[in-house]
Amino acid sequence: MVVVISGRLVENRIVIWDISDSRALFGSGYYGKPLGIPKPKGTNFDAPLVLDLIEGYYLVEKRRLQLFYIDGKQVSLNEIRKICKKQYVDFDAKYLVFQNLRNKGYIVTPGMKFGCDFAVYEQGPGIDHAPYLVRVFRATDDLTATGVVLAGRLATTVKKQFILAIPKVTERKVDYVGFDWWRA
Amino acid sequence: MVVVISGRLVENRIVIWDISDSRALFGSGYYGKPLGIPKPKGTNFDAPLVLDLIEGYYLVEKRRLQLFYIDGKQVSLNEIRKICKKQYVDFDAKYLVFQNLRNKGYIVTPGMKFGCDFAVYEQGPGIDHAPYLVRVFRATDDLTATGVVLAGRLATTVKKQFILAIPKVTERKVDYVGFDWWRA
Repeated sequence: MVVVISGRLVENRIVIWDISDSRALFGSGYYGKPLGIPKPKGTNFDAPLVLDLIEGYYLVEKRRLQLFYIDGKQVSLNEIRKICKKQYVDFDAKYLVFQNLRNKGYIVTPGMKFGCDFAVYEQGPGIDHAPYLVRVFRATDDLTATGVVLAGRLATTVKKQFILAIPKVTERKVDYVGFDWWRA
Repeated sequence: MVVVISGRLVENRIVIWDISDSRALFGSGYYGKPLGIPKPKGTNFDAPLVLDLIEGYYLVEKRRLQLFYIDGKQVSLNEIRKICKKQYVDFDAKYLVFQNLRNKGYIVTPGMKFGCDFAVYEQGPGIDHAPYLVRVFRATDDLTATGVVLAGRLATTVKKQFILAIPKVTERKVDYVGFDWWRA
């Protein structure tokens, strides 16, 4: 039996107010962040869970989450997608990568603080030594050799691997290119 | 004692006519190719050795090679460089990478047949399973995400690693970025 969790859409975030639902969702794939707890240890926290919209969209699509406006009205999948498309540049491309990685069992978290789209873990934050830093590009996006070096260098400096994800939206497939940088 | 070998400049190639010199040079780092022997086994060949200009320039600079025109007049280092600059697009950048890799003990061979600048071996062709494919880029060169995918994909398909080399000519240093490609 899969328990469907309820979440509230608050501005551009989703809040799970029920503490046991929050713990269950965070404990089953590190979705969201417990409010006010920057480095949660396990699921033994007493705080609501805050999800990013992209996480919410994925969970609604997977029927693990039902989403409601503040006034109690349910948010349809189509409505969430419209909201996501306003909040994320190139949402469809980014979502395809998020979904592709999540469906394969990776832990996909927002990469903003690393200057990329997603920080991806095999086991989870605090368990893996370091995340992979994933940046989503469209096939036609330009990048310079310097850009590639900077990205590779940045990731290497912080002992993380930088990965370029280029989604093929029509085929629902993603090309991944991993980078290692060194100077000699 | 380092033996200085003599070579002749013939069009845009350098020929070592002396067979024992040819064997010695090929045997000490896989410089050049024995004429008419596409896959030489060891150094037991009876053929003159044909070097690329970039190899010749490196060996002259290292004082392992003296280079002569057909008429017997010696070719100065400066003259070889001028000839190289006519033969290679972006010779200084390419040479910096060649020199950087050779000085570190790698075997650096022409990469033309692999569609790159250099095919690089740790031990040597026929000993290593496969070479690294190295392409020299200037920091300002543009590459598209598709270009990166194609390059990574090509190298992965032929079980070779693709490496971008971006020389910093003023610092005499080279940034290397290695690529791994996969589709999911």
